[in-house]
Amino acid sequence: MTKMRFDVLTLFPEMFSGFLNSSIIRRAHEKEIVQTNLINFREYARDKHQTVDDAPYGGGGGMVLKPAPLFEAVDALLEGSSKRPPIILMSPQGAPFTQQKAQELAGYSHLIFLCGHYEGYDERIRQYLATEEISIGDYVLTGGELPAMVVMDSVTRLLPGVLGNQTSAVTDSFANGLLEHPHYTRPAEYRGYRVPDILLSGHHGKVEKWRRQESLRRTWERRPELLRSVSLTPEDQAFLRKIARSSDQE
Amino acid sequence: MTKMRFDVLTLFPEMFSGFLNSSIIRRAHEKEIVQTNLINFREYARDKHQTVDDAPYGGGGGMVLKPAPLFEAVDALLEGSSKRPPIILMSPQGAPFTQQKAQELAGYSHLIFLCGHYEGYDERIRQYLATEEISIGDYVLTGGELPAMVVMDSVTRLLPGVLGNQTSAVTDSFANGLLEHPHYTRPAEYRGYRVPDILLSGHHGKVEKWRRQESLRRTWERRPELLRSVSLTPEDQAFLRKIARSSDQE
Repeated sequence: MTKMRFDVLTLFPEMFSGFLNSSIIRRAHEKEIVQTNLINFREYARDKHQTVDDAPYGGGGGMVLKPAPLFEAVDALLEGSSKRPPIILMSPQGAPFTQQKAQELAGYSHLIFLCGHYEGYDERIRQYLATEEISIGDYVLTGGELPAMVVMDSVTRLLPGVLGNQTSAVTDSFANGLLEHPHYTRPAEYRGYRVPDILLSGHHGKVEKWRRQESLRRTWERRPELLRSVSLTPEDQAFLRKIARSSDQE
Repeated sequence: MTKMRFDVLTLFPEMFSGFLNSSIIRRAHEKEIVQTNLINFREYARDKHQTVDDAPYGGGGGMVLKPAPLFEAVDALLEGSSKRPPIILMSPQGAPFTQQKAQELAGYSHLIFLCGHYEGYDERIRQYLATEEISIGDYVLTGGELPAMVVMDSVTRLLPGVLGNQTSAVTDSFANGLLEHPHYTRPAEYRGYRVPDILLSGHHGKVEKWRRQESLRRTWERRPELLRSVSLTPEDQAFLRKIARSSDQE
């Protein structure tokens, strides 16, 4: 049974073809866990030339997406439905997307994405049509299509039945708030670079301890701000104090 | 003349088809400003089954990308070349991608992207092959393909000759460190929602002042941390004090 319906409003539905045919996403569609509808909202532009954008009031360069095509496309999607799903505007001004947000969105059964190209959206789309705005990061992209795919990918992975191994989604980065520990696979030596002995030891307890410590070390070195929102054991805290001290001495 | 060559190492080159055929990226390729090569590094797996991944040393679920196929694919790309371009591993453990990083990367003429699926990369890829690691945000994705497209899109937009209007890239969000001001276009009234009178006034100076203030207000409301790294005029600071005071009184 379909657990999630994605409606994507875009002027460039063809951008999604490679993504929708990619491994995990394709499988989620084949299993009918996810259903995706791509809607070109240009079809809802009523004038002869099907205009979707116009010059900004107040002057300046660039074009602004008009309100009517998006409002009417959403009306058509929700006609006869009493439920109002989240209507997500993909925008660099939105709330930063996080794994926690992905988990929240995975709890819905229907999400609508509004993807704009061009300079910007008419503010009334933001204020009166969208129920929330999401940004995938502080950088400028051509449009909302790649950001919508990012959100769709991260949400799809969390739906029951999508990943073969139920533990995979849990052990991934950010699931426990820390960066992942290093991984190694065969060969044990490649171009003179060796795998750490402890991983070859077969000692399960030592391996687990090493992984936790390397995960803490990597987070401390690269993204120390993440440590503030993680629950740490006394042993974790002792290890972090140790690496902090040895770095002071360098 | 080609200003940028992207080499993308991936097991899923077909994922890029929609993206490479999309508006601005396609135009950058048609104008020969950008050249993109998709390399399936499975071709560099030497065994009969063309294995690219294997179980992790030390146990645990998931699969880890083996070092050899990626090392050898990069060797083949750089054969006979004395220059070593950035070799960018797309990874949730990387440095957070920013507009500043996009500008830095746009200064190169050749970038190599390493995109992995599966649980993770053998650590030796990270340590001895990649020259840097980039993360597009704190969320879990199926692989590095969407992140590579995000970086390619943001970098391409910054290359001279790609955007028709040279000012577009500058006035976008984050270019000045603030979130963008609201935009409006016709009609002046839609479903009872009106465009602010000031934008219809035709008074250029007042419009500019309103836009600056709304940009400050939006940044203050949504992403106050961004204000720390922006250069503010005394007038900006007075405005921010004013909205801070009126919010205290609410």
